[in-house]
Amino acid sequence: MDATFSVWFLIGAALVFFMQCGFAMVETGFTRAKNAGNIIMKNLMDFCIGTVVFILIGFGLFLGEDCAGLIGKPGLDIITNYQNFDWSNFVFNLVFCATAATIVSGAMAERTKFISYCIYSGVISALIYPIEAHWIWGNGWLSQWGFHDFAGSCAIHMVGGISALIGAKILGPRIGKFDKDKNGKVKKVHAIPGHSLTLGALGCFILWFGWYGFNGAAAKTVDGLGSIFVTTTIAPAVATFVCMIFTWLKYGKPDVSMCLNASLAGLVGITAGCDVMDATGAVVVGIVSGLLVPFGVWLLDHKLHIDDPVGAVAVHMMNGIWGTLAVGLFATGTAPENASYDEPFTGLFYGGGFELLGKQVVGILTVGAWTAVMITITFLVIKSTIGLRASAEEEIIGLDATEHNLPSSYADFMPSASSVTEIQAQGAAAGVNTAGVVPVSQAVEVKVAPNVIHEDGSPKLTKLSIICKPEKLETLKASLSAIGVKGITVTNVMGYGTQKGQKVYYRGVERDEVQLLPKTKVEVVVSKVPVDTVVNTVKQALYTGNIGDGKIFVFDVENVVKVRTGEVGFDALQGEDDYD
Amino acid sequence: MDATFSVWFLIGAALVFFMQCGFAMVETGFTRAKNAGNIIMKNLMDFCIGTVVFILIGFGLFLGEDCAGLIGKPGLDIITNYQNFDWSNFVFNLVFCATAATIVSGAMAERTKFISYCIYSGVISALIYPIEAHWIWGNGWLSQWGFHDFAGSCAIHMVGGISALIGAKILGPRIGKFDKDKNGKVKKVHAIPGHSLTLGALGCFILWFGWYGFNGAAAKTVDGLGSIFVTTTIAPAVATFVCMIFTWLKYGKPDVSMCLNASLAGLVGITAGCDVMDATGAVVVGIVSGLLVPFGVWLLDHKLHIDDPVGAVAVHMMNGIWGTLAVGLFATGTAPENASYDEPFTGLFYGGGFELLGKQVVGILTVGAWTAVMITITFLVIKSTIGLRASAEEEIIGLDATEHNLPSSYADFMPSASSVTEIQAQGAAAGVNTAGVVPVSQAVEVKVAPNVIHEDGSPKLTKLSIICKPEKLETLKASLSAIGVKGITVTNVMGYGTQKGQKVYYRGVERDEVQLLPKTKVEVVVSKVPVDTVVNTVKQALYTGNIGDGKIFVFDVENVVKVRTGEVGFDALQGEDDYD
Amino acid sequence: MDATFSVWFLIGAALVFFMQCGFAMVETGFTRAKNAGNIIMKNLMDFCIGTVVFILIGFGLFLGEDCAGLIGKPGLDIITNYQNFDWSNFVFNLVFCATAATIVSGAMAERTKFISYCIYSGVISALIYPIEAHWIWGNGWLSQWGFHDFAGSCAIHMVGGISALIGAKILGPRIGKFDKDKNGKVKKVHAIPGHSLTLGALGCFILWFGWYGFNGAAAKTVDGLGSIFVTTTIAPAVATFVCMIFTWLKYGKPDVSMCLNASLAGLVGITAGCDVMDATGAVVVGIVSGLLVPFGVWLLDHKLHIDDPVGAVAVHMMNGIWGTLAVGLFATGTAPENASYDEPFTGLFYGGGFELLGKQVVGILTVGAWTAVMITITFLVIKSTIGLRASAEEEIIGLDATEHNLPSSYADFMPSASSVTEIQAQGAAAGVNTAGVVPVSQAVEVKVAPNVIHEDGSPKLTKLSIICKPEKLETLKASLSAIGVKGITVTNVMGYGTQKGQKVYYRGVERDEVQLLPKTKVEVVVSKVPVDTVVNTVKQALYTGNIGDGKIFVFDVENVVKVRTGEVGFDALQGEDDYD
Repeated sequence: MDATFSVWFLIGAALVFFMQCGFAMVETGFTRAKNAGNIIMKNLMDFCIGTVVFILIGFGLFLGEDCAGLIGKPGLDIITNYQNFDWSNFVFNLVFCATAATIVSGAMAERTKFISYCIYSGVISALIYPIEAHWIWGNGWLSQWGFHDFAGSCAIHMVGGISALIGAKILGPRIGKFDKDKNGKVKKVHAIPGHSLTLGALGCFILWFGWYGFNGAAAKTVDGLGSIFVTTTIAPAVATFVCMIFTWLKYGKPDVSMCLNASLAGLVGITAGCDVMDATGAVVVGIVSGLLVPFGVWLLDHKLHIDDPVGAVAVHMMNGIWGTLAVGLFATGTAPENASYDEPFTGLFYGGGFELLGKQVVGILTVGAWTAVMITITFLVIKSTIGLRASAEEEIIGLDATEHNLPSSYADFMPSASSVTEIQAQGAAAGVNTAGVVPVSQAVEVKVAPNVIHEDGSPKLTKLSIICKPEKLETLKASLSAIGVKGITVTNVMGYGTQKGQKVYYRGVERDEVQLLPKTKVEVVVSKVPVDTVVNTVKQALYTGNIGDGKIFVFDVENVVKVRTGEVGFDALQGEDDYD
Repeated sequence: MDATFSVWFLIGAALVFFMQCGFAMVETGFTRAKNAGNIIMKNLMDFCIGTVVFILIGFGLFLGEDCAGLIGKPGLDIITNYQNFDWSNFVFNLVFCATAATIVSGAMAERTKFISYCIYSGVISALIYPIEAHWIWGNGWLSQWGFHDFAGSCAIHMVGGISALIGAKILGPRIGKFDKDKNGKVKKVHAIPGHSLTLGALGCFILWFGWYGFNGAAAKTVDGLGSIFVTTTIAPAVATFVCMIFTWLKYGKPDVSMCLNASLAGLVGITAGCDVMDATGAVVVGIVSGLLVPFGVWLLDHKLHIDDPVGAVAVHMMNGIWGTLAVGLFATGTAPENASYDEPFTGLFYGGGFELLGKQVVGILTVGAWTAVMITITFLVIKSTIGLRASAEEEIIGLDATEHNLPSSYADFMPSASSVTEIQAQGAAAGVNTAGVVPVSQAVEVKVAPNVIHEDGSPKLTKLSIICKPEKLETLKASLSAIGVKGITVTNVMGYGTQKGQKVYYRGVERDEVQLLPKTKVEVVVSKVPVDTVVNTVKQALYTGNIGDGKIFVFDVENVVKVRTGEVGFDALQGEDDYD
Repeated sequence: MDATFSVWFLIGAALVFFMQCGFAMVETGFTRAKNAGNIIMKNLMDFCIGTVVFILIGFGLFLGEDCAGLIGKPGLDIITNYQNFDWSNFVFNLVFCATAATIVSGAMAERTKFISYCIYSGVISALIYPIEAHWIWGNGWLSQWGFHDFAGSCAIHMVGGISALIGAKILGPRIGKFDKDKNGKVKKVHAIPGHSLTLGALGCFILWFGWYGFNGAAAKTVDGLGSIFVTTTIAPAVATFVCMIFTWLKYGKPDVSMCLNASLAGLVGITAGCDVMDATGAVVVGIVSGLLVPFGVWLLDHKLHIDDPVGAVAVHMMNGIWGTLAVGLFATGTAPENASYDEPFTGLFYGGGFELLGKQVVGILTVGAWTAVMITITFLVIKSTIGLRASAEEEIIGLDATEHNLPSSYADFMPSASSVTEIQAQGAAAGVNTAGVVPVSQAVEVKVAPNVIHEDGSPKLTKLSIICKPEKLETLKASLSAIGVKGITVTNVMGYGTQKGQKVYYRGVERDEVQLLPKTKVEVVVSKVPVDTVVNTVKQALYTGNIGDGKIFVFDVENVVKVRTGEVGFDALQGEDDYD
């Protein structure tokens, strides 16, 4: 092969490696800060574990001597016969393999055990991907038969996307994603915003940049490469444009994160046929890809109720399938790279009839079936042995802290109130850190006391200032609401103390015991509701029998004024809108 | 053409595409977090919209058959005659075109309507850029005549920079940038710091990296490319160094964000002549570029009073002009790429006389005039129809929320006190969210009550704790100050409640109604100022007649001690320095 | 040389330039937010200053005509004889040179004076690196003798790493890193977490991507380049994998930041021999590199007590040495690039005996000695003249504010409580901003008053609400603890006022005087401890005689309930666990 294209082949491989960075940024940015380190680690490790298993078994299964069109013959030529090894192909196929593995992590983010991730990621790189890639690219039966997938809409993205879908389904949704009624039917879907849209966007731009290597690396002619760059540019641009218009019409505003997804969708869609399609084909691919993103996100959220935090299924699976099909529809001899093949590929709309389309369908079905069966077995074996999903407590606290001893990936920034509240609410619901030693009913006695009246006949006003653990906020709020106390003010404060616990290391250094503990101050002012009732209710809500249950301070209030109505004293605290 | 340089041409195009990422990061990092998603979206969309219109019209106007030296003949060969299409040139020129468009968004950031951005960005890519690029690079009159702009100091950066200047001028400054006196004269300039210097720096490094493709892609010889890399490295390095020294001397400390700008300025400056200058020329270009940044930023801020959040005018317009002129001064036959031209370009200081310099001046003037006229028409038409600028309310709240339904691009981080306060202050000034149903004067009655004295003759001390909407803080502070209450303590707290409003979607999922509302607690302790006066003043300041106007709680205070003076009680609250 | 490899050589140089971005992101992400702008600036400036001095002196010393094998002949051909200049080599070697310089900044981060950094960075680029690089790559004595360091494990990374080690040692640790007992012996090591793990990870991915250029740029054959890509991929992947396993076993959890370091360590390790090793060698290099990271970090933290915030010594020095040695062990003729040398390099384990290994050892020792002597002189001269280290006050406040007038690199985000507390605690310990005009003892008089008892015989409960400067928190806490008041609640609040001080500029605009000052509210409720005692203690702790010393407000408390025990009133405030 010409030296220019050989060197470009390796430059392309480096660009595809860089896509690992893009995936890491997209997946991290679109999820929550409490899992950022974990997601980074997974994206780093799928490449590193993938390299190890690809050396040991994957590369042989993929590109070893063909056995009946089904698998390559495993071997360790890279160790035993380095002198005659196919160096460039190894690197190129390794970085592609890692791409397939990394897609899965996004859909399963924020709730998968790290060790389980390492295992299934290794299985994909060692077995699942190499064997189907052998069919498609390694002189296996699909490639011999005339199935066409130039850069991997099917071999990489559909395979990654199907694994993502099955994984997300088996794993179940993140805590807080779906509200269910008593029959287990989903009655409400919640949005869980990512923690850094700019990181997500950075990742998308890096991926698009790297995709010129992904789609172009295997080109063999200048014209072919130029045309690949054209189609690889048009499809994502059109997809993004269409997605913007669609979300604008559908949701009232152009949705940023879906448009970022749409860029990737267009890239996935054009990947299979980037070499054999013209600009028209790329435009059509882009239009469909741009619509598949909002459709896919909606389908998973609202119909299938599968929680895919980053949209991996919509982007990679749906557009992987679409892109592979599109080859059968739009392949045309006018694309210069197409002319370099022994038999140019021609799709349905360019006079090729149903033959190529049929082969594409068969390829999708067989590769899809192989992937679905293998990954299902993998997940179920993991689930029934070491477990696939992190515990509720780990998930609520965040995988950075629980899987990697990282109290925060952003140690210098204050978490937002909403993210802390979410942890508090979910922790309360899951009973995390709130289990007491003695049952509450035995510990405190509830007495109803009469209201105190001032000497002048006016009802007394009393402020109660409650200092408690942050995770008790939701419980406390519900309890107060139940006795008619609705207008509460919450402040995040700090209390001094020492938190005992297991040793935690950061870069091998034992982390200091925390001296400044986050506490929550809840203030209520009551008049009608007796102070004793409030005190007892708070005691019940907070009591666990452990140090740190908190204190209640009681103050006299001279007066209260409600600004809107001008009411004062007792009256200012009544009314339906306690929230004033 | 040689395959090596043909492939490099496309690699260069990919690098130029990656510069879109750099622009997105620079513009986002140098502006405020509340607009991050909007800026990302704009940077994504100028490329995607640009692609669509470049296919339809721009590419033909640029590189179609020349008509009288003025425009290329539009056509749709990309659709109708793909087989013979000039694929590589299309991609290469598309990514350049998108660069011109994206420069504008920085100067107009944080206050432009998104739909208006989409339109003018499309006009630049469809008409303004392609026609002047035809003059310079598309065999138009300037290129025939001998004007030289190798990689676009004039064609890209000056055009983008002029558009940025005019846009920022027509748009007006961001709220809070300039304080004006009663005659409309600017009396104070405010700094509005960006929200992430690291993202800004990341963007600059990416841009510099991509610039090796930007300047080098069109090289035709190894020597020429090597020399281009030399000049493209020296100019920005020297510019950055000079800017560091200058800002150190001028402002007492080396300014980070201006040095980052200076790197880009040096790159813009060397772009026109990177192929025909030697190292000496690059050094001089760099020195001037490094000074133009602080000069340009100062000129816009302090003299022209035009608000350019990211320094786009100083970087791209001024250095675009400077770089184009510099060709006429420093072009030399010793630069290897220069020897490959039919007639080497020679500047004034290398014996070429004024001829080349004159042509460069004419090019700058004509291209500048074309750009200024066209973009002014575009902006004025938009302004008089759909409007160019977001409403004050949208700008204050942030374009992420108002244009894209994104409450935050950083959902897990707490906004800083200063950014919240800025929103509060600007919201109060603009009357955002504070319009009441009933005039305040009709709703509350102000009575002046005598001071209460304790039985022992000491003046009573009273604490008032006011819970109100955050956007009322500035109004409240001003009102309290007017009655002599100056020492106030402010705490960000949360109140529980439900905020009704229009439906908001994130990735197609309706966002939950907010349960935890941000509130501001203002505490004052008074003795001399009657409590009733304070209460009535607060009522006036906060009253709108709507739910959520807040409450005032009144507490008895036993004593107050001022640490510095040791004064207690009434005395501790007097004195000029209420702030102790 | 073949055009393909000549162009690739320059593309590789661009990739190595991009590594500057990677270093900037790694170093910034792994350190604290208060120094982010300073670290960015340093990384930008080492390249820009490096370019200036490399032009003036470095390039000549490196690649000028050889003088006795020791130095190249300095010259200014780049200015005087541009036509015949070696453009590509200049750029290529410049970007390598900048890499050596930038490594040092990480180990010396967060406490080095900016001007001192500029100077020693310049010395490395002008003298230290060019001369040893001349020995190794510039036809100097080591290259003539047969020492092999293909891409710079020794010439770049070991040199940078040794400079980093010596710099960090001379500089001393960051405040708060090590606790010492009275004899100066370290009794406790503290972890200082970085402020953005995602930025750190981004940097690592960028570095790995750029490393394909770093190691591959000088390849001369397709096979050689392919093999270099293989070894450059395997070593970091294996190193990361091994580090994950090791930290998992050693510290209980897989450590994210050390695994990111391990990727870089594997890359450093393979750099010297990437061209002459096979896959087996790369695996072994990777295993050792993956272990050297946790070992090196542990060694510096726990044994040498040298503070290296980013792990530069473990990554670059240790693996630089290891990689250089590894050539002598694992160089093999089966690596294709090796065959292109006149005499293939063969290591100990491949039948080459001790000859090559001996040369490698000599190279390490001589280059190491040269570096150690020169950089020690450089640091000591700087230290004894302008000073090397920022003042304690500058370090505590952060170098962004003190060196660059940047109050924050992240203006829109709230700093975390722990980062603010750290500044408060260190500021208090260092006496920053707390020096008073009048000695405390003269200013306030301490009287012990009897406890007040309610009329019904129950002890009175009193709340004291103290508003003070944030930096006084630690002092206040200690003072209160000394008189038996342990349960305190701390809230970050804001007070209004004006902070006078020197003028501060951001992008040439004078920054506004601060209107909203951060204050700390400390609340305690006491019964047993007399209120007067508390008041006097607080006065002593807070008194400086300056405006802003704060106020103490005293309130009556009706009752207190301790939730855990059900105790009320006086009893609820007693007990050992004041923290409840």
